[in-house]
Amino acid sequence: MQKTLSIKNIKGGVTAPKGFTAVGIHAGIKPRSALDLALVLSERAGPIAGVFTKNQILAASVVVNKQLLKKRMGQAIVVNSGNANACTGTQGMTNAKEVQTLTARHLGIPKSTVFIGSTGVIGRALPMPILRNAIPHLVKQVRRSGHTKAAKAIMTTDTKSKEFACQAKIGKHVITVGGMAKGSGMIHPNMATMLAYLTTDAAITPQALQRGLTEAVDLSFNAISVDGDSSTNDTVLCLANGLANNPVITHGTSEWHAFASLIQRACESLALQICRDGEGATKLVTIIVEGTQSNPQAKQIAQTIATSMLVKTALFGEDPNWGRIIAAIGRAGVPLDPNNITLMFDEIIVVQGGQRVSDQADARAQKVMRKKELTLWVSIGKGAGRHRLWTTDLSYEYVKINASYTT
Amino acid sequence: MQKTLSIKNIKGGVTAPKGFTAVGIHAGIKPRSALDLALVLSERAGPIAGVFTKNQILAASVVVNKQLLKKRMGQAIVVNSGNANACTGTQGMTNAKEVQTLTARHLGIPKSTVFIGSTGVIGRALPMPILRNAIPHLVKQVRRSGHTKAAKAIMTTDTKSKEFACQAKIGKHVITVGGMAKGSGMIHPNMATMLAYLTTDAAITPQALQRGLTEAVDLSFNAISVDGDSSTNDTVLCLANGLANNPVITHGTSEWHAFASLIQRACESLALQICRDGEGATKLVTIIVEGTQSNPQAKQIAQTIATSMLVKTALFGEDPNWGRIIAAIGRAGVPLDPNNITLMFDEIIVVQGGQRVSDQADARAQKVMRKKELTLWVSIGKGAGRHRLWTTDLSYEYVKINASYTT
Repeated sequence: MQKTLSIKNIKGGVTAPKGFTAVGIHAGIKPRSALDLALVLSERAGPIAGVFTKNQILAASVVVNKQLLKKRMGQAIVVNSGNANACTGTQGMTNAKEVQTLTARHLGIPKSTVFIGSTGVIGRALPMPILRNAIPHLVKQVRRSGHTKAAKAIMTTDTKSKEFACQAKIGKHVITVGGMAKGSGMIHPNMATMLAYLTTDAAITPQALQRGLTEAVDLSFNAISVDGDSSTNDTVLCLANGLANNPVITHGTSEWHAFASLIQRACESLALQICRDGEGATKLVTIIVEGTQSNPQAKQIAQTIATSMLVKTALFGEDPNWGRIIAAIGRAGVPLDPNNITLMFDEIIVVQGGQRVSDQADARAQKVMRKKELTLWVSIGKGAGRHRLWTTDLSYEYVKINASYTT
Repeated sequence: MQKTLSIKNIKGGVTAPKGFTAVGIHAGIKPRSALDLALVLSERAGPIAGVFTKNQILAASVVVNKQLLKKRMGQAIVVNSGNANACTGTQGMTNAKEVQTLTARHLGIPKSTVFIGSTGVIGRALPMPILRNAIPHLVKQVRRSGHTKAAKAIMTTDTKSKEFACQAKIGKHVITVGGMAKGSGMIHPNMATMLAYLTTDAAITPQALQRGLTEAVDLSFNAISVDGDSSTNDTVLCLANGLANNPVITHGTSEWHAFASLIQRACESLALQICRDGEGATKLVTIIVEGTQSNPQAKQIAQTIATSMLVKTALFGEDPNWGRIIAAIGRAGVPLDPNNITLMFDEIIVVQGGQRVSDQADARAQKVMRKKELTLWVSIGKGAGRHRLWTTDLSYEYVKINASYTT
């Protein structure tokens, strides 16, 4: 890796890299005038990489994209919100392909380079008359400034749109990465659909792009998530058009490591924006587990803590009820000696050697709990295993949002 | 099994079987005058069986009981609420043994026959001066009518005390089983401590008693729970004194099957009382999964549905948002063909062959959702695997109760 790599965050989103335009419009899938149809377009086709849900039940868009991805070339991504087009059978597949075909035709590009996405309610047919009417208007409105509307058009329960862009000089060329995402279901994060679309002007091989994206997703979107807790629609795509004119990046080179850092920065920012916009979340909590025999063991403990309803409600209540954290550690299924457990709230040690430190420590921890962002640090021994993830608290608001979503 | 076994529910709790007395008093562990110390006593010692938490971090009471259970004889159970005596190290063990020893001394029975229990906040030392003062008063007040106070004295976040008793004629003898329980954390059920104490006047071998209890717990308390989601303190004990004077029951006989049915009836009733008292729960939902290749596969799917926050909030919102159920089925980790999924709300089929049935079916399902008790029935194929469990919805009230428990 280049030791001097300096990544600069810049304004903008998916249109920050050279040669990209975008737009979001109100097609009419959602009520009122909410934006519900987005398009991201590159001046020219280029390599595309993708990471998809692990759910066995796949939305039509995921089936179509997985098929398209075999050719590893893309130029446009069209995404609707308000309808997931999942559990819709043969008709759902026909509808998805029609959206793809119509978009390609009106853009005048091969349909094999048009990727699609959907998010919203499961089990209802896409309103095709609305989409047939909207797509010709959609394709005419793409522009460099359209990234904001595109980011808004993919939202569902999100309270804020999520965008990010950054760039770095790799070799002699400035490479830019842009992105947008939607998602906010922080309880079992991926169950509420998470979509992220990244763009870059890097010249890169499809394989190198895929490796970079896969690693970045593991360290970001998968670190706010629980293995397998994927919705039917979860998708991350990264489209590269090569307009930075750099020498083509191949996997494993120092340029690739530099590019991977850029993609990671973008994915981490978008993942944390999703976390901060956790449905009804009031806190962003970093959980670090160390001292296990392996990284997967640390991950298992971190996820058990992160998904514990009792821990989450204690976080919301700003109650340093660390017994709930200890109980979660003990039931995570990782062999451990209870007498080796250390637990910190930020820099305050509340449990050492498996026992409570003092009243004073509990009082200091209580102050840490009042912060909007804090870290729970757990050590269970001297092993080299480690995992970091992010989660949120569970508030009244979460229940309210999710109890009244479809109706 | 006797084909004619007729089980009769009767009034009362742990003192319903012959020879049992009980009491609950306010020792002073909890504030105000809340009952916080319970005693169950048999006229004479007899076989005892136990099932304990699978958590690796064990409260002192669980460590003591596991040790005692090797002798398989018991006569009394003393339980405090308001303090879990967990994560309290060596001092916690010393304190637990002192409670046991003091109770035995004041009752004038061997301390090896006195079992103990604790539930409440983790990480604080038991208030020994309070307990030393209370135990002499406690033992003097046991009486036949004391079962109600005993059931109240083991409560924490429970809104109702939980008791049950039933009897049946097995051979020529009437056998009675009584019980009480506490617990209400229905999100990940066993994380909030679940305690259940059963009594019986049956004459039975320790081994036959243990087999009966283990099977009953699997079909009841473990069917409102998620594997491994145990607190540091979870305990089920069953004490038998033989005063029904029946021929001693041994494992595998028709009398044993009849007795096992009695214990199962009691455990199921207590488990459902816990479920109905789920913290802030407004609905009791039975989840039945069928058609898997094995029972564990069915259990895995049922538990994934039952612990999904999005499913739970949809239940609270009375929103037949079955896409969330389908997504949970798809991510449960059991291989399946999405086109074979059938989903029913009570008798209303909403998904067949993996697809939505109709608007009318959704409307009828919406009516089912308004019921206080309903069944979600899932079939994923033609296999013989099956699992049934009970769960509840997730309401604002749950968050409120759990955000403000220790403070």
